[in-house]
Amino acid sequence: MSKPFVAILMGSDSDLPALQATFKALKSFDITYEVRIHSAHRTPEATHDYVTGAEARGCQAFICAAGLAAHLAGAVSAITVRPVIGVPMDGGPLKGQDALLSTVMMPGGIPVATVAIGSAGAKNAAYLAAQIMAVSDSDLAQKLRDEREANKKKILARNDEVQKELGLA
Amino acid sequence: MSKPFVAILMGSDSDLPALQATFKALKSFDITYEVRIHSAHRTPEATHDYVTGAEARGCQAFICAAGLAAHLAGAVSAITVRPVIGVPMDGGPLKGQDALLSTVMMPGGIPVATVAIGSAGAKNAAYLAAQIMAVSDSDLAQKLRDEREANKKKILARNDEVQKELGLA
Amino acid sequence: MSKPFVAILMGSDSDLPALQATFKALKSFDITYEVRIHSAHRTPEATHDYVTGAEARGCQAFICAAGLAAHLAGAVSAITVRPVIGVPMDGGPLKGQDALLSTVMMPGGIPVATVAIGSAGAKNAAYLAAQIMAVSDSDLAQKLRDEREANKKKILARNDEVQKELGLA
Amino acid sequence: MSKPFVAILMGSDSDLPALQATFKALKSFDITYEVRIHSAHRTPEATHDYVTGAEARGCQAFICAAGLAAHLAGAVSAITVRPVIGVPMDGGPLKGQDALLSTVMMPGGIPVATVAIGSAGAKNAAYLAAQIMAVSDSDLAQKLRDEREANKKKILARNDEVQKELGLA
Amino acid sequence: MSKPFVAILMGSDSDLPALQATFKALKSFDITYEVRIHSAHRTPEATHDYVTGAEARGCQAFICAAGLAAHLAGAVSAITVRPVIGVPMDGGPLKGQDALLSTVMMPGGIPVATVAIGSAGAKNAAYLAAQIMAVSDSDLAQKLRDEREANKKKILARNDEVQKELGLA
Amino acid sequence: MSKPFVAILMGSDSDLPALQATFKALKSFDITYEVRIHSAHRTPEATHDYVTGAEARGCQAFICAAGLAAHLAGAVSAITVRPVIGVPMDGGPLKGQDALLSTVMMPGGIPVATVAIGSAGAKNAAYLAAQIMAVSDSDLAQKLRDEREANKKKILARNDEVQKELGLA
Amino acid sequence: MSKPFVAILMGSDSDLPALQATFKALKSFDITYEVRIHSAHRTPEATHDYVTGAEARGCQAFICAAGLAAHLAGAVSAITVRPVIGVPMDGGPLKGQDALLSTVMMPGGIPVATVAIGSAGAKNAAYLAAQIMAVSDSDLAQKLRDEREANKKKILARNDEVQKELGLA
Amino acid sequence: MSKPFVAILMGSDSDLPALQATFKALKSFDITYEVRIHSAHRTPEATHDYVTGAEARGCQAFICAAGLAAHLAGAVSAITVRPVIGVPMDGGPLKGQDALLSTVMMPGGIPVATVAIGSAGAKNAAYLAAQIMAVSDSDLAQKLRDEREANKKKILARNDEVQKELGLA
Repeated sequence: MSKPFVAILMGSDSDLPALQATFKALKSFDITYEVRIHSAHRTPEATHDYVTGAEARGCQAFICAAGLAAHLAGAVSAITVRPVIGVPMDGGPLKGQDALLSTVMMPGGIPVATVAIGSAGAKNAAYLAAQIMAVSDSDLAQKLRDEREANKKKILARNDEVQKELGLA
Repeated sequence: MSKPFVAILMGSDSDLPALQATFKALKSFDITYEVRIHSAHRTPEATHDYVTGAEARGCQAFICAAGLAAHLAGAVSAITVRPVIGVPMDGGPLKGQDALLSTVMMPGGIPVATVAIGSAGAKNAAYLAAQIMAVSDSDLAQKLRDEREANKKKILARNDEVQKELGLA
Repeated sequence: MSKPFVAILMGSDSDLPALQATFKALKSFDITYEVRIHSAHRTPEATHDYVTGAEARGCQAFICAAGLAAHLAGAVSAITVRPVIGVPMDGGPLKGQDALLSTVMMPGGIPVATVAIGSAGAKNAAYLAAQIMAVSDSDLAQKLRDEREANKKKILARNDEVQKELGLA
Repeated sequence: MSKPFVAILMGSDSDLPALQATFKALKSFDITYEVRIHSAHRTPEATHDYVTGAEARGCQAFICAAGLAAHLAGAVSAITVRPVIGVPMDGGPLKGQDALLSTVMMPGGIPVATVAIGSAGAKNAAYLAAQIMAVSDSDLAQKLRDEREANKKKILARNDEVQKELGLA
Repeated sequence: MSKPFVAILMGSDSDLPALQATFKALKSFDITYEVRIHSAHRTPEATHDYVTGAEARGCQAFICAAGLAAHLAGAVSAITVRPVIGVPMDGGPLKGQDALLSTVMMPGGIPVATVAIGSAGAKNAAYLAAQIMAVSDSDLAQKLRDEREANKKKILARNDEVQKELGLA
Repeated sequence: MSKPFVAILMGSDSDLPALQATFKALKSFDITYEVRIHSAHRTPEATHDYVTGAEARGCQAFICAAGLAAHLAGAVSAITVRPVIGVPMDGGPLKGQDALLSTVMMPGGIPVATVAIGSAGAKNAAYLAAQIMAVSDSDLAQKLRDEREANKKKILARNDEVQKELGLA
Repeated sequence: MSKPFVAILMGSDSDLPALQATFKALKSFDITYEVRIHSAHRTPEATHDYVTGAEARGCQAFICAAGLAAHLAGAVSAITVRPVIGVPMDGGPLKGQDALLSTVMMPGGIPVATVAIGSAGAKNAAYLAAQIMAVSDSDLAQKLRDEREANKKKILARNDEVQKELGLA
Repeated sequence: MSKPFVAILMGSDSDLPALQATFKALKSFDITYEVRIHSAHRTPEATHDYVTGAEARGCQAFICAAGLAAHLAGAVSAITVRPVIGVPMDGGPLKGQDALLSTVMMPGGIPVATVAIGSAGAKNAAYLAAQIMAVSDSDLAQKLRDEREANKKKILARNDEVQKELGLA
């Protein structure tokens, strides 16, 4: 079995810009990932073959991004017993309210770990995948803790700056 | 090829009571139908095999009823080029708002003909299937026209009764 | 009776740009179509006369696009027993949530085959009309299957390109 | 021309119980009213004929109650230049949110005077009709003012009672 | 008592651009109107005094435009027994969904005749006011009928043009 | 000036059962309160007179409960500069979504301190009023802290019991 | 104990532009305020320490602005018995509907005084904080009354101007 | 470090009945779990201490169930780098729409793996936790696969029965 990795699927390449945040966060944790443009509806067989193969090759979590009646994450969850993370995209007139409900309201037995609509979710999908991998990888768990500490310091430093900018220090 | 028919799929047998309205309406138009309990997520292969076979055997329209993150109609539409009618069921805390959006907001190329949430939709799915079959069946088209006339008369008769009940006649 | 065709009605000519996707898809399947600017509320008689005549002349499906309190598809469905496809337009402050509910929540007996709000729906209305006509036209059914295959290949080719663009191949 | 009156239309006799509040309020103002079970979709001709005739016979305002994709008020407004009051009924899984949007979001030129969903709206439809008639009927205007005064006194009396019931007086 | 007129109130002068459609439509029917910037919350006494005076001077209908928690129409309706038309404005993050519910969901006894959110409602408020005045003004009723006929002809002419533009004539 | 107190207003006595939670919580903090059945729309003068008088007599916070197009809290806030707490009631078909937006979306300058819809809000309105009074009453502040500690202990004790009930201890 | 003041917390410095309205209003009432960039999730300890210290140093009200799943106001309310004002920010695809519900629907015992989404709320948070402080500061109460009078005059003056601009004076 | 386990937290013991589905599913996979009644707002220190300790003792995933402005899952996610699964409960007037948005719309860096509102989510939380643990436990992964197969067979058997019940076999 190959090195553990995350598989990222999206229904259309129009979602690529939003998923840069996912790629970036996974890279920051040195997590290997694969990316596929596969659609639950338009390329169901390719989706099935890829997911089955990825699970066999060591995929530890799937990230599926889709908009509108977003079925991709649910369809992938039906194929694999690895955790599937759904990112509802905010394209379309309903701004992702449709994608959120289509992703999160899964019936019993086929779960999708749903994160926020759009860019916040794209970033958190990577963090959640990292947390899942970190359950059995204490180095990665430490990286996640370090990142939190670094982030805290950044916010507190920004807080100090803001005092000066507002003339309140 | 066998006699034309309608195939009705539902994600769970808990939808059977709501679909009695569908069965009843199809019977009233002497339309043959098949019923399957098949789930997009829990029995994807059986769904695929049934839909492919049904199309080959002369199925002219599929009716798919599902609740929550209702993917069944979309999954069936991805398999067949026959018209697929989606009935969003109103089970669950969101009363079918989730099922409606999961069914109707399909991306370009894979349409689902969506009808109303719940019981009104269950009845109209049968009427819509009948209309689709009636495009090439003028006897059935006439039955649909006759039913409308009969229904009109019933409403107008009820209107007359109500005048008396309210003491307004 | 003339050659089978699809009749497209819209409440206002402001919907014409969005419906180019409908026209384009119908043309790609060599389906004849007619277009009318007719309003359920502002030109009810013209709507009635056109729909009655179109059914008599061989119209096999109606596509009705309207926004806000979108009554056009329902009003047309009340006149004809041909399948009526409703496209909820996303103009106005509620972005088509009003048009979706006004179109899809039809009472029992008068169905509207509702597709997605806005541009995805405009395209799928044409696909659904083609599927309805293809029930009795096996050449058209084959064209629909061929288009799906071509579309699959396009997505898979795009998937390969993306591997290279992302430096993951 | 006959005595001025209000015409009340409803899509189905299942709305009769909710409209008792309308009947009661109109009676309290000695306003003559007619009631019809007519549907925009199922009895469009009867609706058209009744509305045209009612306007000619002295109808001063129409009250239209309908649920789901509630088109009745809009359809009546398209026929007459008399004010049309729409009451969105709260039947169905969406509790009248669909009926509200289908009734109120009318395009420019064909207004519907929409009141609250359900029972509050059923009562207010009568008050609004009375206010419209009172524009040219100063006796009726005075009745409306008297009813408000009586209502104020009732609330203030109830307020006094409540002090005692709560042991706060 | 002076000539019959319509009184238009708005909570803030930021609503003036949207209400140009109201002014224009009233002018087209030769209806006299007054305009006031008055707020239910910020100038309650001025609102009260103006409404009381306007009713006494012959105001036949009030049009109240407000956004967010839009109380203006309800507050005016509490002061007068003339019909009050509420226009929910679409400013703010919720695009008028808040204003719609705040305007339309009035409790029994104090009705507000609510029209569509934003520009469609601004136009229809004028039409509805004209319809209310036309109940006792047959010349105005005829103007409303004439406008409808003219509008029908405009749509039908535009329909003819579109045939040519699309190369379908 | 009399002893500090809280004034509770509600639009109708049908809200009394839900407000028992408010009364109970205020009593538990030994806070004096008054209760009035007053409506923004049906008894505007009584509302105005009561609020003006209450502020003069030492009222430190107003609690206003109303449902549907809930204007009461906003109308009271327009009269006084004391903090006004709005409780959106969940009566009616929209379950308080209308009351929430009508209460919270106040325009700049006239704030309403809005709490949760229904029973949770009824209780929290009392707590918030107590917190406002406690800003200048350190004994009351201590009571609030003590209640929190007691509540913590109750939850932790319940947590221990649950371990046993579930057989997990 | 130091001079009474208001503490303003926000989850991210991206909320600073929106909160200028809060700063400006507090300054107009000569109210001292502090500003902190602190996150309920990313800097929970700093949030806890700051809130505890601020209460001890004389903070009379907290204003917490956050978007998306906005927990900041609730988390602060859990730490202090001072009134906590929540401002739901309108960033993100749902335009603050998520932040509104996450802020206002607090369970019993831990209230958040919620104001409008976005800019109207940012201004009103300052007004509400001023009203809370004015309960025990009659000079500040007078300033609030004076501001209302000045605002009324401004609106009435604007009303007069508008008469001229519209040619209606 | 002890045996791997799942920690289940809920804001109130009123959520216990709904979480029986979680307990049952975890037991069916032989997964050890702990249960705590802890509130993000009412017992923040106990929550913090428990979560920190549970992570140290070998907790591999947290399941947090809460209703209304559901902050519990987010608050726990801020404390640990283990995956946190949020179950939005459907209590309260908004039927869990508030809890869903409060749980899922987390800002970048602090993810919550959100599942469906209510009972479907309670079951899927257990399945998702099992999938997370199964990433490094191939026996558990096999149990998950076996359960799916057994479930498939049950649905297909039920499908066969239904044929007979409907008289269609």
